[in-house]
Amino acid sequence: MKICQVEKTLVSTNRIKEMGHRPLLVVKEKNGARSVAVDAIGCVAGDWVIAVSGSASRAAAGSKDYPSDLTIVGIIDNWSEE
Amino acid sequence: MKICQVEKTLVSTNRIKEMGHRPLLVVKEKNGARSVAVDAIGCVAGDWVIAVSGSASRAAAGSKDYPSDLTIVGIIDNWSEE
Amino acid sequence: MKICQVEKTLVSTNRIKEMGHRPLLVVKEKNGARSVAVDAIGCVAGDWVIAVSGSASRAAAGSKDYPSDLTIVGIIDNWSEE
Amino acid sequence: MKICQVEKTLVSTNRIKEMGHRPLLVVKEKNGARSVAVDAIGCVAGDWVIAVSGSASRAAAGSKDYPSDLTIVGIIDNWSEE
Amino acid sequence: MKICQVEKTLVSTNRIKEMGHRPLLVVKEKNGARSVAVDAIGCVAGDWVIAVSGSASRAAAGSKDYPSDLTIVGIIDNWSEE
Repeated sequence: MKICQVEKTLVSTNRIKEMGHRPLLVVKEKNGARSVAVDAIGCVAGDWVIAVSGSASRAAAGSKDYPSDLTIVGIIDNWSEE
Repeated sequence: MKICQVEKTLVSTNRIKEMGHRPLLVVKEKNGARSVAVDAIGCVAGDWVIAVSGSASRAAAGSKDYPSDLTIVGIIDNWSEE
Repeated sequence: MKICQVEKTLVSTNRIKEMGHRPLLVVKEKNGARSVAVDAIGCVAGDWVIAVSGSASRAAAGSKDYPSDLTIVGIIDNWSEE
Repeated sequence: MKICQVEKTLVSTNRIKEMGHRPLLVVKEKNGARSVAVDAIGCVAGDWVIAVSGSASRAAAGSKDYPSDLTIVGIIDNWSEE
Repeated sequence: MKICQVEKTLVSTNRIKEMGHRPLLVVKEKNGARSVAVDAIGCVAGDWVIAVSGSASRAAAGSKDYPSDLTIVGIIDNWSEE
């Protein structure tokens, strides 16, 4: 799983109906790369989180049919980015 | 999901029949890497979009049998590439 | 999908039987990275092509049991690599 | 499979229930990239291990429904990182 | 599929039982990155080989339940690494 920091909410009004109204978050990896993740846990900007990719991210988003390839599955208790 | 900007339509007359006539778009990530994505939402050059990869991209393209590995699933309302 | 240029045919006499006699091609991405792709469309050295990766590449190669992770699914009509 | 060194245990109290109480470890690849892996073998900090990614990592974590994309499946007997 | 050179056998006595006794090999890509692959063809150190990744690598390793994400499926007849 990837270690990412939540940056902000992503607003996408025009999306395919299968995505529903699940919150989408912009997350940033240590190397600076930004991705969009589905939030399955309830986190806020600044949180360091664990995000699962690949086929596991669909079920983690709530349904095997959910069109996700990156889902936040946990908040890290303490993370000091050295 | 990846954050990409739509660059242009890709013309590929000679393609496998399973791809049908779905529009294919050239998208560009912030790091400059170009990929080809199936458009499931209806977007135009210049749009910043969310694209889902992996097995989720097939269903997002309309059918689990569609041969996609990258499908545009939403248009980002506002994106300022800093 | 990836944008690649076909470089040459790859000869591999000793391969697992599930691969059959499908032609294998060496393809090159813009960044110089080389991969091996199954040709599902019929292309020649020099062609710029679209190649699908991941689980979609198996069905695109003709069968869900075909052991491919990269399959050429279309030839790009015009591609000027700037 | 990836070759990684186990760095430490990751504490994530707030995680989706599907993750259960399986131990999560921070692993580091030779290039310095850190990921989080599920431990299916029982290893300790400093061990060099083999970690499987993708859909195979779910079954390796104990169940096809486990939300993992990286699971440690073996400890390397001797590894000298040259 | 990836083009890799076989470097050596990897010894991992302590592995999950699902891996069985299949030989594991350390392979090296042109960019120097090392991975571990399951050998489905019978190759020796120095061979240039084709390795399939992702879900296709499981069936190529002999069973859809085998926990592989990289399996060697062919030996390249002639490869001059320019």
